[in-house]
Amino acid sequence: MTPFDLSDTSRRLRHLISLEHLPAAQILRLLDRAEALQQQWLRDRRKLDLLHGRTVVNLFFENSTRTRTSFDLAAKRLGADVINFDIASSSTSKGESLIDTLHTLEAMHCDAFVVRHKENGTAEFLARHVRSAACVINAGDGSNAHPTQGLLDAYTIRRRRPDFATLRVLICGDILHSRVARSDIHALRTLGVGNLRVCAPANLLPAETELPGCEIVEDFDSALDGADVIIMLRLQKERMEQAQVPSEQAYYARYGLDARRLRLARPDCLVMHPGPLNREVEIASAVADSAQSCILEQVGNGVFVRMAVLAELLGV
Amino acid sequence: MTPFDLSDTSRRLRHLISLEHLPAAQILRLLDRAEALQQQWLRDRRKLDLLHGRTVVNLFFENSTRTRTSFDLAAKRLGADVINFDIASSSTSKGESLIDTLHTLEAMHCDAFVVRHKENGTAEFLARHVRSAACVINAGDGSNAHPTQGLLDAYTIRRRRPDFATLRVLICGDILHSRVARSDIHALRTLGVGNLRVCAPANLLPAETELPGCEIVEDFDSALDGADVIIMLRLQKERMEQAQVPSEQAYYARYGLDARRLRLARPDCLVMHPGPLNREVEIASAVADSAQSCILEQVGNGVFVRMAVLAELLGV
Amino acid sequence: MTPFDLSDTSRRLRHLISLEHLPAAQILRLLDRAEALQQQWLRDRRKLDLLHGRTVVNLFFENSTRTRTSFDLAAKRLGADVINFDIASSSTSKGESLIDTLHTLEAMHCDAFVVRHKENGTAEFLARHVRSAACVINAGDGSNAHPTQGLLDAYTIRRRRPDFATLRVLICGDILHSRVARSDIHALRTLGVGNLRVCAPANLLPAETELPGCEIVEDFDSALDGADVIIMLRLQKERMEQAQVPSEQAYYARYGLDARRLRLARPDCLVMHPGPLNREVEIASAVADSAQSCILEQVGNGVFVRMAVLAELLGV
Repeated sequence: MTPFDLSDTSRRLRHLISLEHLPAAQILRLLDRAEALQQQWLRDRRKLDLLHGRTVVNLFFENSTRTRTSFDLAAKRLGADVINFDIASSSTSKGESLIDTLHTLEAMHCDAFVVRHKENGTAEFLARHVRSAACVINAGDGSNAHPTQGLLDAYTIRRRRPDFATLRVLICGDILHSRVARSDIHALRTLGVGNLRVCAPANLLPAETELPGCEIVEDFDSALDGADVIIMLRLQKERMEQAQVPSEQAYYARYGLDARRLRLARPDCLVMHPGPLNREVEIASAVADSAQSCILEQVGNGVFVRMAVLAELLGV
Repeated sequence: MTPFDLSDTSRRLRHLISLEHLPAAQILRLLDRAEALQQQWLRDRRKLDLLHGRTVVNLFFENSTRTRTSFDLAAKRLGADVINFDIASSSTSKGESLIDTLHTLEAMHCDAFVVRHKENGTAEFLARHVRSAACVINAGDGSNAHPTQGLLDAYTIRRRRPDFATLRVLICGDILHSRVARSDIHALRTLGVGNLRVCAPANLLPAETELPGCEIVEDFDSALDGADVIIMLRLQKERMEQAQVPSEQAYYARYGLDARRLRLARPDCLVMHPGPLNREVEIASAVADSAQSCILEQVGNGVFVRMAVLAELLGV
Repeated sequence: MTPFDLSDTSRRLRHLISLEHLPAAQILRLLDRAEALQQQWLRDRRKLDLLHGRTVVNLFFENSTRTRTSFDLAAKRLGADVINFDIASSSTSKGESLIDTLHTLEAMHCDAFVVRHKENGTAEFLARHVRSAACVINAGDGSNAHPTQGLLDAYTIRRRRPDFATLRVLICGDILHSRVARSDIHALRTLGVGNLRVCAPANLLPAETELPGCEIVEDFDSALDGADVIIMLRLQKERMEQAQVPSEQAYYARYGLDARRLRLARPDCLVMHPGPLNREVEIASAVADSAQSCILEQVGNGVFVRMAVLAELLGV
């Protein structure tokens, strides 16, 4: 499904399911809108009235405080009402009952559905079943996509290093299972990052055909050479239970970003991480809390990017 | 307890506990208010300011996303603040601690209490203990009453078939345990429905004295003959555990509304259901999703009816 | 840490962690602000716009409906948005992850953190790690402090008995484990209560050095003699499990406030309790619901006191 299958005839974005196939112009439009909203917020610290009367529903089937709170704040600061569906423990799956829930909330004139689910394709599945003018925003589906994270990472990099053509960006960690990595790669390739590298343990690396345009570097030290931006991924604990990762210590020794390794990158290299951090597992505290770290900046930018997405999708 | 025991001297409705004894004029006043609010909403899509500064508390001792969300949206769209008390798992019963909770929230200047509880009489119990000007709205108590569902069902029928005197309405399913059926019967009898029929398995039918004014028809096919409106009830799973219903398949064969049976009713017969649906248990998907189905219309109307109830009870 | 360690140079209160060391002028300023807010609310019943665009986060690591709802209403009635973090069951402790949560929410431009935690010192710990202009309000930490309860108790007494110098105030119950008792003692001593008495079972009484300025009276009947105000504390059930209290009946016989005992105090003696009540354990229902009881008044006052605290700390 290309994004335009989910767009109206004027090519306005209808839903936000994935950044794959999303043209650079659309991405830039969202980033510019986020920039404008951020300027306005920092100047006025006032909520906007753009989404007054609109209702945003958080449909989170996986626990998340960080992303849900970010969407919650984004919606409220645009003047919308927010309904939080607490269904982390629910057995509702992609079957009929999930669709019935969607149609029920549409009948109540809800306008946007922010969806997180452990199964790939849930947000797209819901978007295909929307009957009203409501929009669906993917807040993470399995290992598939996390488009607002991809946008906020691109936004964070652009604010610090606007000349994408000359940039060397490294993504390191469990690429295979990471929806963040997929969305980052889509965004950064589309925006023309000069050199995009990935580094992962061999058993946590997808097939090369799934990483078009990426340079795959096995050795972390080599991968760091000359990097302008490093995006470290969170190690999921279940990878260790499934014996895909030997131990936290062994992982940290080979793929943990510590102060020594950071010096292999460019001196002004930015350090990013989608959070929450596993300190001393994939990243040293000294690095995460250093002046080169943009991790909290990412968090702050996330709210403005999500405001932009909500405003654009709801056509205000 | 008649509604006027719970009314003030000007006979304005004070609480909404049950539709029994509620005069037609009161019901019509609420439906007319809902109609006005719906027109205004569809025209402006703006929240109203009627309940600015008022606080509505959702006191749900049973899990419910549908009804709670409907009340939540109704209150917010009138400008009220909403407090959601998550007490589904609490051991608070009708004893002292529930009253203390009520008085505590009244002391905090909360204005309306929307109460759902598995025990009959909880909402009335709370209404009798209110000390302030706050009002209590029954959002379902055991098998006793669900007055806003009764109102929204009457509202949905009136918008489609305003001439109640000539209507034949059939309610089918577990009448014995259904608070929806009781409230529907009270509303529709008071509003003068010409012919009100009920159909249920013999062990799920209350004593005839509890169904005044209703025609009891044993055979579902016969009951459907000439019906203008069919209200199907949700089969509670626990009925099967208690062996009151043999199996889903056997129930569906005798009391499930499928396309063949629907053709026994009038060709323009409306199909209603309070939700959530047990598809292929009490109703076929083909019927629930057909052009004759008003099920999602009921959901949408529910928000406006609850806005009307809140506005009327709070005297704005 | 004195409060001014947590204040800015203009000596404006920066956080509210404890009432210890808080000067009378600061306390009186908060009580006067609460008084003004209460007058305005009772006159207009309108929400204020003071905290429009601000976000208050409820970080409750212990279950609480009463205090959390009070803060929730206080923030909303000042026009703020509220984020409720549901972390009662979380394993987050005072380690790194709690700080990361704080910094994440600060990065999202949250302005105030209302913190409850079973461990002493959690709110202060967070206040020391705040990086933005955000403020921390202690909503109860272990047995250490519950400063807004101390303020609302002082406020409640002042509205009824403004001449503190001549007052005899008795606090009775499990003083040892009570953060309410500690904060009440700090507030009332600072405001110059003439005679402050405590009464508790010997094993639930802290060392005398921890009760400076308090008269310790062993026998409850003697302690009641001439009291103008009695503050009864809630008996925690775990005290009985730990065999610190023999049984509810035995405790009630020696330390329960019933009608007979109340007659030992002054005839117009006020009865207070922070709630929730254990009826017939530390207080008789006849006393809790009597005309001398200020218990629900405390609850109502609590919202205005918390509005005052939020407004003062956020500098509006």
